[in-house]
Order: sequence, then structure tokens, then C-alpha cells
Amino acid sequence: MAAGLGVKAAPFTYVAHALAVAAAVMVLVWCISFRGGLAFEADNKNLIFNVHPVLMLIGYIILGSEAIMIYKIFPKLNHDTTKLIHLILHAIAIVLGAVGIYCAFKFHNESGIANLYSLHSWLGIGTISLYGIQWIFGFVAFFYPGAAPHVRRGALPWHVLFGLFVYVLTLATAELGLLEKLTFLQSSGLDKYGAEAFLVNFTGLVVALFGAAVVVAAVAPAHVEEPEGYAPIPVN
Amino acid sequence: MAAGLGVKAAPFTYVAHALAVAAAVMVLVWCISFRGGLAFEADNKNLIFNVHPVLMLIGYIILGSEAIMIYKIFPKLNHDTTKLIHLILHAIAIVLGAVGIYCAFKFHNESGIANLYSLHSWLGIGTISLYGIQWIFGFVAFFYPGAAPHVRRGALPWHVLFGLFVYVLTLATAELGLLEKLTFLQSSGLDKYGAEAFLVNFTGLVVALFGAAVVVAAVAPAHVEEPEGYAPIPVN
Repeated sequence: MAAGLGVKAAPFTYVAHALAVAAAVMVLVWCISFRGGLAFEADNKNLIFNVHPVLMLIGYIILGSEAIMIYKIFPKLNHDTTKLIHLILHAIAIVLGAVGIYCAFKFHNESGIANLYSLHSWLGIGTISLYGIQWIFGFVAFFYPGAAPHVRRGALPWHVLFGLFVYVLTLATAELGLLEKLTFLQSSGLDKYGAEAFLVNFTGLVVALFGAAVVVAAVAPAHVEEPEGYAPIPVN
Repeated sequence: MAAGLGVKAAPFTYVAHALAVAAAVMVLVWCISFRGGLAFEADNKNLIFNVHPVLMLIGYIILGSEAIMIYKIFPKLNHDTTKLIHLILHAIAIVLGAVGIYCAFKFHNESGIANLYSLHSWLGIGTISLYGIQWIFGFVAFFYPGAAPHVRRGALPWHVLFGLFVYVLTLATAELGLLEKLTFLQSSGLDKYGAEAFLVNFTGLVVALFGAAVVVAAVAPAHVEEPEGYAPIPVN
């Protein structure tokens, strides 16, 4: 299907990069300018929470997205090098995601807020667990020790499909997190139509479009075949 | 990519049907047993709200999902008949979705609650608009009057890709809606770890798995080619 789209992956990677920068700036403006900044230790526990959206979006989702697109960002790079970048970026994303989740628990525990009751937390824990399983499976099958060639060939489409499933779940979890936090703030009096509410909602829209660009970049081919009958006429 | 999975769509349609039944039962139990029932006119405005999740999940998402999978549910049916079912089911889904959205506005307006400030509402309005545009484009290009064959051939993969993008956005919007409503109820005192909270969260998980099954059913082929070298040996 993806090959039939007749588009190359490259332009979608450019769009994704631009939207990633936009989303990163938006979440930083939100957490620093509107919410007071970031801290691992603070009397104002909200500053500990603020690390959570920043790390989940920039560290976990954006780095993970670059890892997904890496084969399309550098289509001419040596395959083994690209694979190494792919697995290292995903590993960093998982670690930063885990630190981000730790900050959410730390904020809850130091503020007397209950843990793990919301759909955001359920999906989030489930998703990062699947992400880790996917990473281990990919490492063993495709990197070290590496499965037999026919097993790899059969496993690759499933690696891509399951990887994109987990990726879309991370995006959905991010949307849930943005809505959940904003709902808490609004029930504590934040203006429903104010600048901060619009910033957070637009961050959600940018993340959705970013994710769409990443998925298309992942499934679109790096090179498009010339359609039959329109191939360049050979010179000699 | 999808063809390389080596699986047929059929089993995924069965899984999707089973999960659709589960999700439908869960949202009905929630809105009727836990939330007091459904009504278009009532002094208890909450009953008007309750129509919203029921219509959005059963009418909009589940009917729309069946429309998406119809070519894989009946792979041997005449193509024109399947196409007609596809567009009629999608049309019914859009109408029921619009009625469901109307009930949310009606509940807000009759209860003095603000409209269209949350990410759920933004994504929801955006998604059903895109859904409608997709339907009109599909009707004109593939049904009546129908574009020229080479235009259809070029447009079909984009119809599938954009359709699945809109579909995943409807799923994300549903997850946001479940979380938003439950967050409101919990901030009004509903038990965070009670039966109702778990029912709603599990509905969210079932919807996510349902959506995954529908997407795989949509992209997997109706028939799998025999792998080369393993084709049945001709009799004569």
C-alpha cells in the first residue's frame, strides 16, 4: 500500500523535524514560562511534575520518532550504522521516558496524590513496557546475536507493525496526559479559553500531526520506482 | 509491508468483532447501570450526556470500523456491492456521530457548562469534519460520478492512508473522552479505584486493542500468496 502512494519518505521526515521542533518549544514554554520551571528536588512539588511532560515529549517521543525515521533520514548510510543509531536512540528514549515517569510518581508521592488510577497512567505504563519488550526483541533478533536470515526476513514486517502500534499508543498517551493535566488545572480555576489552555491544546494538535508525519515517513519508501512506461529513455 | 506480514485479514476481523461487542457492552453497562440511563429530554441532564459516549462508540466508531473492514469481512462479495455497504455504513456512522455530538452540546447548554475548550472537543470536531470530507471525496472519486481509472488508481492508496489517519484520530478522541469524563467524576468524589473507574479504563484499553485489530484487518491482504517454492504441485 505504502509504495502505491507514489511519494518518497524524505519530505515527510522534513515535516516531522519541523513539527518536532515546534512541539519541543511549546512544551518548554508551557512548563517553564507558564508552570514555573523544572526541578528534581523542590519545595514547590509542581516543578518536579513539570519535568514529566518535558522528558516524555522531547526525550521519549521525539527521540523515539527520530529513531523510527532514521532509515529514511539517512537512506544512503551504511545499514549497520543506521541500525546502531536506531537502537541507541530508542534506548536513550526509553531511559529518558523512565526518568520522566519517575518524576510523575515522585510528584504524586511527595504531594499525597494517588498513583496509577487514570487511563493515562495505565496506557503509559503498558506502552513503555511494550516499548521495552520491542527493543529487547529487536536487539536479539536483528543485532546480537541475530536470528537466522529467514527468521529476520519474516520478523521484520512484524517489528515494523508492532513498533508503529506501540508508537501510536505513546502518542495517544501523550494526548491523554496533556488533557488530564489541563483538566486538573482548569478544575482549580485556570481559564478554559486562556493562553495556557490554547497552548496546551495546540501542543496536542502538533503532536498528532507530528505522529502522522512520522508514521508516513516510516512506511513510505526511501526511493520511488519510476512508473512503468515513464522510465527515462536510455541514452545509448 | 502489510503483504510481508504473511497473515490474512480474516482472523483480525473476527478479533475486531469480538472486541467491538465487548466495548459496546461495556459502554452500555457504564452509561445505563452506573450513570442512570439514556434520554434526549430529561430533568436530570446527565442522562442527555450519557447518549454521547454510547452513540460515539457504538454508532460512530464501531459502525465506522465495520465499514473500514467490509472488504475483508466479505472478500468474495461483488466489489460494487461491498463498496455500497462501505459508503452507507460510513454515512450512518457520521450521522450517528453528529447526533452524539449534538447531545454533548445539549447537555452542556442545558447545564451551563462551557463548550469546545478541551482537547477532546477540538480533536473530535476536527476529526468528524475530516471524516465527512473523506466521505465526500470517496463518494465523488469512487462512486458517483467516479474519476477516470488512472485517477482512481492513484487516489486509492491515499484514500486508505488518510482514512486510517482519521480513524486513529477518532480512537484517540474516544480515549480522551473516556479520560475526561472520568476525571470530572473523580474530581466530584468518584472512587479512583472503584468498579466504575476500572470499567471505564478497561473500556479504553478494549477500544485501543479493537482499533489495532481493525487497522491490521484493513492493511492485511484478503488472501495470502503461497510463498515461492511452496506452491502446490500442479496435477498434470
